[in-house]
Amino acid sequence: MNAPGSAILPPRLVDILNLPAKEQNLRVSGWLRTRRDAPSFSFLELNDGSCLQGLQIIAEHNLPGWESLHKQITTGAALAVRGRLMPSPARGQRLELRADEITVLGTADASYPLQKKRHSFEFLRSITHLRSRTNALGAVARVRNTLSSAIHQFLQAQGFIQVHTPLITTSDCEGAGEMFTVTTLSGTADYSRDFFGRHAGLTVSGQLQAEVYAMSHSRVYTFGPTFRAENSNTTRHLAEFWMLEPEVAFCDLEGDMRLAEALLRFVVGELLQKNAEDLALFDQRLEPGLLDKLRRFTTTPFQRLTYTEAIERLQSSPHPFAVPVSWGMDLQAEHERYLAEELVVGPLFVTNYPASLKPFYMRLDEGEQTVAAMDLLVPGIGELAGGSQREERLEVLEARMRTAGMDPAQYGWYLDLRRFGSAPHSGFGLGFERLVLFCTGSANIRECIPFPRTPGSAPC
Amino acid sequence: MNAPGSAILPPRLVDILNLPAKEQNLRVSGWLRTRRDAPSFSFLELNDGSCLQGLQIIAEHNLPGWESLHKQITTGAALAVRGRLMPSPARGQRLELRADEITVLGTADASYPLQKKRHSFEFLRSITHLRSRTNALGAVARVRNTLSSAIHQFLQAQGFIQVHTPLITTSDCEGAGEMFTVTTLSGTADYSRDFFGRHAGLTVSGQLQAEVYAMSHSRVYTFGPTFRAENSNTTRHLAEFWMLEPEVAFCDLEGDMRLAEALLRFVVGELLQKNAEDLALFDQRLEPGLLDKLRRFTTTPFQRLTYTEAIERLQSSPHPFAVPVSWGMDLQAEHERYLAEELVVGPLFVTNYPASLKPFYMRLDEGEQTVAAMDLLVPGIGELAGGSQREERLEVLEARMRTAGMDPAQYGWYLDLRRFGSAPHSGFGLGFERLVLFCTGSANIRECIPFPRTPGSAPC
Repeated sequence: MNAPGSAILPPRLVDILNLPAKEQNLRVSGWLRTRRDAPSFSFLELNDGSCLQGLQIIAEHNLPGWESLHKQITTGAALAVRGRLMPSPARGQRLELRADEITVLGTADASYPLQKKRHSFEFLRSITHLRSRTNALGAVARVRNTLSSAIHQFLQAQGFIQVHTPLITTSDCEGAGEMFTVTTLSGTADYSRDFFGRHAGLTVSGQLQAEVYAMSHSRVYTFGPTFRAENSNTTRHLAEFWMLEPEVAFCDLEGDMRLAEALLRFVVGELLQKNAEDLALFDQRLEPGLLDKLRRFTTTPFQRLTYTEAIERLQSSPHPFAVPVSWGMDLQAEHERYLAEELVVGPLFVTNYPASLKPFYMRLDEGEQTVAAMDLLVPGIGELAGGSQREERLEVLEARMRTAGMDPAQYGWYLDLRRFGSAPHSGFGLGFERLVLFCTGSANIRECIPFPRTPGSAPC
Repeated sequence: MNAPGSAILPPRLVDILNLPAKEQNLRVSGWLRTRRDAPSFSFLELNDGSCLQGLQIIAEHNLPGWESLHKQITTGAALAVRGRLMPSPARGQRLELRADEITVLGTADASYPLQKKRHSFEFLRSITHLRSRTNALGAVARVRNTLSSAIHQFLQAQGFIQVHTPLITTSDCEGAGEMFTVTTLSGTADYSRDFFGRHAGLTVSGQLQAEVYAMSHSRVYTFGPTFRAENSNTTRHLAEFWMLEPEVAFCDLEGDMRLAEALLRFVVGELLQKNAEDLALFDQRLEPGLLDKLRRFTTTPFQRLTYTEAIERLQSSPHPFAVPVSWGMDLQAEHERYLAEELVVGPLFVTNYPASLKPFYMRLDEGEQTVAAMDLLVPGIGELAGGSQREERLEVLEARMRTAGMDPAQYGWYLDLRRFGSAPHSGFGLGFERLVLFCTGSANIRECIPFPRTPGSAPC
């Protein structure tokens, strides 16, 4: 059995850039980012996506075949280079590679859309199949990977198991979500003749099915794509996005918040450690102060405020709000921003929202006006995560479903979880692209997912 | 920042069962699996899904409230127990908990479908929302988690990044896959008026989009649900299943096989180490010899045979095949089984299949009769993974698409990967449920995924 770290494949550029500064022969592969020509040699910057920085190659013009080679060595070309790695006299790099042989694996002619100059994110969105080759989108992909990997790492260490909840579902978690239909029919809506014998759609949340496993394995999470067929063309909406949803048995709202806080602080801490170079790029180009913001995030305890307290603070604040504040209303973006950015100046949980504002499955508090819900508000982002203690009492849940206009008979399987061995349990949902947005300083969520799906747009 | 292992939540039963054997006060929660009554006390076996074994609780009948409690302490009930953990005199367990206080969190009356006796997997499939509470399905969930987690661990350690490829797609990777339609229309097939402005479906593979990132980040993988709208009601088909697809730049077929072998041996090794108790259950109840088979799998190098060699071996074998063997034919299950189970007696890669049998994107070998493909055949399972070196030559790829009846103009984005900085690259697809099947000895793939989707069945 191989250890996971024992090398099956050749070293990447990030591995090579961290080698000790002594001369050795090497073969590297990557894509040409930039080329600068001196009279008798050229500087070639090669990148393979393993890190932001490239490896500088010195190509003497007396290399074998240079006459024909040099026309093919253009931005975007794929090259394999054999040469001698040695300490570099240049500033900003420890090592460089003096080429003995260059092979062009694939050319990129003048029609290659990613020439040297910077491109707008709007333009790059029109070439999602090439944009990951740019510095910024390349860094987003690495950041996304670190965050996703750290989420698994944290939850596995905490004894969670991942449950692969289904994407095709006949249950609608939010009650009012706009679902995509999944069908093999064409031009008819007779779903009794459809593949599943009834109407099926793409899930808006794996929570209800995750609860099934929370009631057998205590600590579970689902982490996968979810879908909304909302016709929203904004910088915050995607039709397909990833969501993390932990679900914990024998856990109340307080434990739920503790878990969310510990998880987020851990994954952002991992990111600071593993992607310093990528974050520095974002700090410089997308959000000045990003690094400081993330460092503070990992050290500042998250504050808590009940919804009722939040309403009082908003009402007594001198801040002029466009939408007047009253108990029972949904907090608007301006209110959430004020709370996180001016009142608390940091992350905060707002808890115990009016029952009328929240889905049927959230646990009714004593007094029956509010539910054991929490929203995590973060400066610059607004809501980053939302969760609740779940209603574990069968009769209360049934009543809440009826109030929400749902037919309990259609959710027999979900009610069975309360009928047989019901237990207090809690969970939350974390929109993964929101987290990527927060950690990269991107202005648009379409930069936070490899292939964004939005109204009118699914090009590949 | 919290270390991932620092406890945010109370200890699980698996943690408690591994505590040193000295007396201490504890509070535990879980579900009652079995109860045996002696004259003055009862044995209660509590399980919380963190491991197969339960914690034995000794409940004296003079416990406060026992009179009313004991009617509620039935199989499936959720309990919280406060008591003293101490060394157990009983065989087969190191520790037991002497209850000082028992709280019934949720009852399970006589209508609870999972009473003590064993149930058929067929019956359990009719209650997918409860079946994870049984020993066998509970163990499958833990095994699935270990395998999935080990896949991430291995690939991350090898420098791969996970790319979240889209599930809604307008490209059909296999050319002839039966795709589900994703739509917001009802009763019409005018997809120009649909959400994405054209016909969209659920992906049958993330490979094409993973190739985009292989051409920027060199080593990537996608690991998520894929879909087939095939009307197949067999023990091996699912309409929704998980697939792992690594994709590696600057890697040929040989490197691809090396990667697949190292990955599989690592994840099965992890499973043997972490889920010994679960595997022992499967060895005993589902597949005698399973543990030996898995141990051999991690120590036996995988063999290699070209398709042409395989055909020769099959033709010269004394084994009577129902389907006669000739070059150019697709290998049938009987042929694959003979190769893996009788000829090689272990895992083997069959490589370089006739081009006519394989998808357009596989690299044409010299001579143009075969492609640089590999199928991994495993005793008892047949094909566990399949991959190839990809066709990186633009003109050859276009010609192959035309031969396959595809319109290259519709795959402009995919061809751009060959137009700009093309490089040799390879990858494979591993059907995750096939791996779970192999590791659990399950007879039916519907036991290998939490909520199976099959023709006519998507109950939740």
